[in-house]
Amino acid sequence: MLENMNEKCAVVGIYGHKEASKLAYFSLHALQHRGQEAAGISSSDGLKLHTIKDRGLVMKVFDEHKLTTLSGASAIGHTRYSTAGDDSILDAQPVFARYDLGEMAIVHNGNLTNAEEVRNALIKKGAIFQTFMDTENLIHLIAKSEKEKLTDRIIDAVKKIEGAFSLVFLSRTKMFAMRDRFGFRPLSLGRLPNGGYIVASETCAFDLVSAEYIRDVEPGELLIFEEGKEPISIKVFEPTPKHCIFEYVYFARPDSKVFGQSVYQTRKNMGKELAHIQPVEADIVIPVPDGGVPAAIGYAQESGIPYELGIMRNHYIGRTFIEPTQEMRDLKVKMKLSPMTDIIKGKKVIVIDDSIVRGTTSRRIVKMLKEAGAAEVHMRISSPPTTDPCFYGVDTPNKDKLIAANMSVDEICKFIEADSLAYLDEAGLLRSVHAEDDKYCTACFTGKYIV
Amino acid sequence: MLENMNEKCAVVGIYGHKEASKLAYFSLHALQHRGQEAAGISSSDGLKLHTIKDRGLVMKVFDEHKLTTLSGASAIGHTRYSTAGDDSILDAQPVFARYDLGEMAIVHNGNLTNAEEVRNALIKKGAIFQTFMDTENLIHLIAKSEKEKLTDRIIDAVKKIEGAFSLVFLSRTKMFAMRDRFGFRPLSLGRLPNGGYIVASETCAFDLVSAEYIRDVEPGELLIFEEGKEPISIKVFEPTPKHCIFEYVYFARPDSKVFGQSVYQTRKNMGKELAHIQPVEADIVIPVPDGGVPAAIGYAQESGIPYELGIMRNHYIGRTFIEPTQEMRDLKVKMKLSPMTDIIKGKKVIVIDDSIVRGTTSRRIVKMLKEAGAAEVHMRISSPPTTDPCFYGVDTPNKDKLIAANMSVDEICKFIEADSLAYLDEAGLLRSVHAEDDKYCTACFTGKYIV
Amino acid sequence: MLENMNEKCAVVGIYGHKEASKLAYFSLHALQHRGQEAAGISSSDGLKLHTIKDRGLVMKVFDEHKLTTLSGASAIGHTRYSTAGDDSILDAQPVFARYDLGEMAIVHNGNLTNAEEVRNALIKKGAIFQTFMDTENLIHLIAKSEKEKLTDRIIDAVKKIEGAFSLVFLSRTKMFAMRDRFGFRPLSLGRLPNGGYIVASETCAFDLVSAEYIRDVEPGELLIFEEGKEPISIKVFEPTPKHCIFEYVYFARPDSKVFGQSVYQTRKNMGKELAHIQPVEADIVIPVPDGGVPAAIGYAQESGIPYELGIMRNHYIGRTFIEPTQEMRDLKVKMKLSPMTDIIKGKKVIVIDDSIVRGTTSRRIVKMLKEAGAAEVHMRISSPPTTDPCFYGVDTPNKDKLIAANMSVDEICKFIEADSLAYLDEAGLLRSVHAEDDKYCTACFTGKYIV
Amino acid sequence: MLENMNEKCAVVGIYGHKEASKLAYFSLHALQHRGQEAAGISSSDGLKLHTIKDRGLVMKVFDEHKLTTLSGASAIGHTRYSTAGDDSILDAQPVFARYDLGEMAIVHNGNLTNAEEVRNALIKKGAIFQTFMDTENLIHLIAKSEKEKLTDRIIDAVKKIEGAFSLVFLSRTKMFAMRDRFGFRPLSLGRLPNGGYIVASETCAFDLVSAEYIRDVEPGELLIFEEGKEPISIKVFEPTPKHCIFEYVYFARPDSKVFGQSVYQTRKNMGKELAHIQPVEADIVIPVPDGGVPAAIGYAQESGIPYELGIMRNHYIGRTFIEPTQEMRDLKVKMKLSPMTDIIKGKKVIVIDDSIVRGTTSRRIVKMLKEAGAAEVHMRISSPPTTDPCFYGVDTPNKDKLIAANMSVDEICKFIEADSLAYLDEAGLLRSVHAEDDKYCTACFTGKYIV
Repeated sequence: MLENMNEKCAVVGIYGHKEASKLAYFSLHALQHRGQEAAGISSSDGLKLHTIKDRGLVMKVFDEHKLTTLSGASAIGHTRYSTAGDDSILDAQPVFARYDLGEMAIVHNGNLTNAEEVRNALIKKGAIFQTFMDTENLIHLIAKSEKEKLTDRIIDAVKKIEGAFSLVFLSRTKMFAMRDRFGFRPLSLGRLPNGGYIVASETCAFDLVSAEYIRDVEPGELLIFEEGKEPISIKVFEPTPKHCIFEYVYFARPDSKVFGQSVYQTRKNMGKELAHIQPVEADIVIPVPDGGVPAAIGYAQESGIPYELGIMRNHYIGRTFIEPTQEMRDLKVKMKLSPMTDIIKGKKVIVIDDSIVRGTTSRRIVKMLKEAGAAEVHMRISSPPTTDPCFYGVDTPNKDKLIAANMSVDEICKFIEADSLAYLDEAGLLRSVHAEDDKYCTACFTGKYIV
Repeated sequence: MLENMNEKCAVVGIYGHKEASKLAYFSLHALQHRGQEAAGISSSDGLKLHTIKDRGLVMKVFDEHKLTTLSGASAIGHTRYSTAGDDSILDAQPVFARYDLGEMAIVHNGNLTNAEEVRNALIKKGAIFQTFMDTENLIHLIAKSEKEKLTDRIIDAVKKIEGAFSLVFLSRTKMFAMRDRFGFRPLSLGRLPNGGYIVASETCAFDLVSAEYIRDVEPGELLIFEEGKEPISIKVFEPTPKHCIFEYVYFARPDSKVFGQSVYQTRKNMGKELAHIQPVEADIVIPVPDGGVPAAIGYAQESGIPYELGIMRNHYIGRTFIEPTQEMRDLKVKMKLSPMTDIIKGKKVIVIDDSIVRGTTSRRIVKMLKEAGAAEVHMRISSPPTTDPCFYGVDTPNKDKLIAANMSVDEICKFIEADSLAYLDEAGLLRSVHAEDDKYCTACFTGKYIV
Repeated sequence: MLENMNEKCAVVGIYGHKEASKLAYFSLHALQHRGQEAAGISSSDGLKLHTIKDRGLVMKVFDEHKLTTLSGASAIGHTRYSTAGDDSILDAQPVFARYDLGEMAIVHNGNLTNAEEVRNALIKKGAIFQTFMDTENLIHLIAKSEKEKLTDRIIDAVKKIEGAFSLVFLSRTKMFAMRDRFGFRPLSLGRLPNGGYIVASETCAFDLVSAEYIRDVEPGELLIFEEGKEPISIKVFEPTPKHCIFEYVYFARPDSKVFGQSVYQTRKNMGKELAHIQPVEADIVIPVPDGGVPAAIGYAQESGIPYELGIMRNHYIGRTFIEPTQEMRDLKVKMKLSPMTDIIKGKKVIVIDDSIVRGTTSRRIVKMLKEAGAAEVHMRISSPPTTDPCFYGVDTPNKDKLIAANMSVDEICKFIEADSLAYLDEAGLLRSVHAEDDKYCTACFTGKYIV
Repeated sequence: MLENMNEKCAVVGIYGHKEASKLAYFSLHALQHRGQEAAGISSSDGLKLHTIKDRGLVMKVFDEHKLTTLSGASAIGHTRYSTAGDDSILDAQPVFARYDLGEMAIVHNGNLTNAEEVRNALIKKGAIFQTFMDTENLIHLIAKSEKEKLTDRIIDAVKKIEGAFSLVFLSRTKMFAMRDRFGFRPLSLGRLPNGGYIVASETCAFDLVSAEYIRDVEPGELLIFEEGKEPISIKVFEPTPKHCIFEYVYFARPDSKVFGQSVYQTRKNMGKELAHIQPVEADIVIPVPDGGVPAAIGYAQESGIPYELGIMRNHYIGRTFIEPTQEMRDLKVKMKLSPMTDIIKGKKVIVIDDSIVRGTTSRRIVKMLKEAGAAEVHMRISSPPTTDPCFYGVDTPNKDKLIAANMSVDEICKFIEADSLAYLDEAGLLRSVHAEDDKYCTACFTGKYIV
């Protein structure tokens, strides 16, 4: 799968480092795969918050001078994926607010399921909304809470919202990290080499800034960072884990640990399970790069069929607005992917991808392999059919666009013109992530949404 | 005067034209001299508001495609001058809000004197502020008003604010234009060639879009634009005009009519009055371009001393970050202004400028003229000494930076090293603008602020 | 005149200053009005030449870092106007060459009339041409000369070319400045504050870098700059001056001295002569800014009719690619120029422009003034009818596009819909520039080309 | 190997397609890995050549409009890698020339070993050189040849040059492709779907434009493309193949066929040979991505040790100019590469890279793996020690910077702090590329240069 489903964003928080905004900057760079549309950082110098946010990649939004103006020992950051409209610039994060306790800034990964309802209630009471982000609800709820202390107000606020949220709050002197009771989206805690702290969506951010992984922020937990103290933990909700299993399937970087496990390992396991339950006689196993690589390695190891790099990915992409000539077939996919003809010609090929969303890309890949001379093309998918949209922070097409919601596996196989098609089943997926108990959200495969 | 005092912004509203955002775009271009830091337009297609705003000149912020997304028959626009900090992007206008009656967008030229007070009161009631603009107060006041209709809420809201405001509001179906009771900042009403309407800070915007000037929006007046109707006028406040006289002195474009009079004519009058009350024997009269041109023409006509273009302005400016060499004296002023040596050499020169703010630029100009061989340099200023900062929408330095607040005219003359220095007096200035009655704010010259 | 005829470029040379390329940079900035399409500088550090050139304004092409790489105590620079084609980048100057004596770079203002012929002869002998610039001829001629010393080769080379050339050559240790025998294009010599030298197309470059004007490089003169010596002068050709009179009419900056006279003064003289020979009863005299300003001041002084700023020029231009709406008439001219309606309404107006090329802009200006309510519009042009194209370094339209080559003055008057139209005659123009003898080229007015 | 050695460029030629420049554009995109500094295309419309070239990636240099101006049915293109100096813009290709037969443009991949000598001889005869590219020699030699026909002149010219050259020439009506007698650099011939032809450095360009591979242009062969005819072949030199073996080791894209063989297959073979002759007991085989992937797959298949993706490459790179904080160790390598900690921890790891140039990157990789917990790190290199610089078109560091030229394998192993280090030997490398006879240049490993 190359496109069509996207993690909506990444968050990071740095506390207790004199170059906090610089650490946030490098962390966001490591998290860039979770959102390329906009980036932002707020820092606090103890007296005042400073915010810079704009459209574009992290490296484009910030420069040395801007980071210097983001002074202070604490900072939070955000990268955003966007379906974008004309208003996109308004929707960059952090969201900043002045309110009765002073100033605060928030970054949010996730999606609130009662956002509309909460917003309407707030609007009825006279609130105004200046953006289209769920996150704006939170600053209103905090501002309107009748509690005196910010900690209590945050607790008040998160009790009124439902859905998925991994949040980091910055006030002038403190930082707060909070996850919903289900722990839908990841959020990990690390220690900076000099004693400060970092929280981030994925641990790959820790590696870049030489931080050490401590543990995940727990579902339902609020962590409070205060100067000169160890982080204070408050159990706001009883945890009932429902981690997004798609983080393992596709979103997270393979070198990250999320929900306590290595992403790469779980992906390899999916490939092994797939080989076990969906075997097929073939000459080579090849991945759709880069997403399918770990599962293909697993499949090859389990099946004993040789792993090959059968499709190459071209990383000099960017967008071209030049129309192809009439004879240039399938230019769009060819500019990204190209077949290793000599490896494929005359071979029975198992091609491993992480998922099929609309089916059009898979169809082009099969066609490309056939044109390169593959004798047979067997598509194997390292997750179950994607039948249902996500409401917890992933940008998915509507159900009518999800091919598996509208066709049987056989029909999909015909549509993509493969010789065979098979998916990993839910049980196999759960085994791959060592889900002894029921702690993952699999709604996109099962339609079983947590209410 | 070349810098140091700046109009804070310009507003425009278009109602009843199928290419409303395009007209707003060209109008903002004509108003670009009132703010070069940021630009924005909101349009309504009847169902939904669309907003695009960003840093930069109008021509840079918008392109054909963006204007297309700003669909609908009504649009409001804004250009902004900014003292800017790291947060500047957050402070572009229009300010957009969703609230209990739907959606609205506001543009504002002016400055609220009770902004802090109103904001604090709103914050105490749980409101949050996401920007540093006074304008945000207004959307809160409208949202929190207990009236049912938007018109009534606007009236409610503007009754709670004090200071200078020329406002244009856009809702999904209507547009509103409002001026404070003093009419500090200008706002004019025009008719589009096809029957729609335009309101704009200056009439130079009308000319570009082929609109016809009808009249000014009156101080204290609310104008309501509704489909298929003539604009409805409501007298919200009893008008007590106190127009910003500095619009005539410096801000407005000479080809505009503001407060009902030609800017160019009033500037020429100032020059004539100045010649009358501050005569000096000399060979030539020259302006500091471009601001001093009309007054210099008036001075020359009244005195009979020949008008000459004695200083040239270079319009290929932009900012250079290249450090000059040691021998390159006064590079900054020389890159903008250069003397006509042959005209000046050996002459007694009267140089006309519109005002002196800090004095440093005037000092460099005198020096430049002397180096070019002027026998005598007599500086004449077409307004009284600028002694007091503005609180009604003009960006002025603090009082301690205003040279006339800290030195006598004689001392200033010595500081700028001129052979003589004289200012127009308040009476002369008022005569220049035909102020039979007391309808102008002259606080920056007199310190007499309207409370 | 706002467009349609353009000086093709400007040159500058700096010798004997440790920050030579920086001085060249600032000089080019002062000369930017002579060419906005491309800019370039070559410097010599004594061992090697360094060249940077690119499309764009001087300020965009260079930055502090680039100037640092252009090390050495001598530098030459160029700005270029271009009719540009797809190959435009290839045609930026300086032109650099390695040849049998080492390295050299050349900048050239002018146009060679035997360029094609010389190039063909060179090509027949096996030379290759990599650009479309006449200047490339010169490096070939120098390289192929059989003389031993560069000085002799330059003399050899310039004897083979005909037409207009103000040249500056840079070798590793020397700089050379050369003007054709007619002195078509200007070139002045100045002294830097610390003892080095500058040559430049106009003296406005001297002012910016605090250099002092010494004299013009003479027609037919070669100046050689060598370390530790006064510039050596060689009379290569017997001078027969035919200076481009259009430099006075339009091209040069009014604060420059070219061909030994103040540009501003000659323009004022043109206005005075025009008032004298083409009087008309009217209420006001107004210029088409900025070109017509000095002549309008002269006309007003001579006629006693008041000078007014009747048309305003908007300097926030740039190009817009937004199509106007149907009702927006004459947008293109209106974005640049707008009328002072109150000054013009009901008045008999004399409008002064420097020239009429195609007639379309003049027509729009008359229309604009009439729409603003002018009772009568009398167009007065401060030069004779432009009837013939230039072959000496000015970009002019073909003869069939020059309105005065195809219509009588009466017909032009009708075409532009003015109440009257009159031009300055040749004699008046020559008087304005104090041409006691016949030392100016007036071919664009008379068709009398120097063969 | 991630950096330090670079192919200098890529060439492409399109003949007989009405959208020739568009095909050249897409082909250059496919060849972008061979040079990212500059790009250019020349086309011929039968009457005139058109050239656009500039710094930057192919996608940045061209847009739809520019491609439209590059009209005609034939086009040649170039991408360039550059060690760049201040003069870099001058050195983009195609090199264009007008000469006695008309116009021509050339693109060149390779390096002439007698360039200096030829240039000096040409300069002595009066030629001038405007760039620092060897390629400029060729247009001089062609222009100066005394033959009448271009074909003969090309033959004349290439007989005077020595070294590596894969050339494509464009005249107004014909296209020529030529390779040196050794065939150092690749050049393949393909057929466009509609009948026209393509020549390109690598066949990956063919796939994108739906062209079909015919054969390689032979060493010493000149191919002439003329309208309405099959390509004419002339054997200019007796072929004595010495193909650059490093194309297989590192430069070419794995999905290309160069010198008649699949790049991917030869790389896999290198891995297999390496496993055979340099076995080591270990738990996993991992590649340094992306270069080491095929060899690592081959090594794993041959050794039976599991292949794992042990190091991840981050493709959101770009350059950052932000200085890291003090604690951020090895930021530069970490921003590109990160370890799969869970895969590596406690394991004996074989890490496969294609080559070691300076050794510093390898040292950082070993350190990174050890920090990630690797029990042992065994570095295996799929080519022999790189001991000698290339003079045939590859940008290599000087010999004193090549670690293998200055240290023994043992010393290198100590330097990079690996537990063991072994290289593929020359015989193994030759077997990998099926070099029955002696048709490859291995000078960078052996110092045996072809004179």
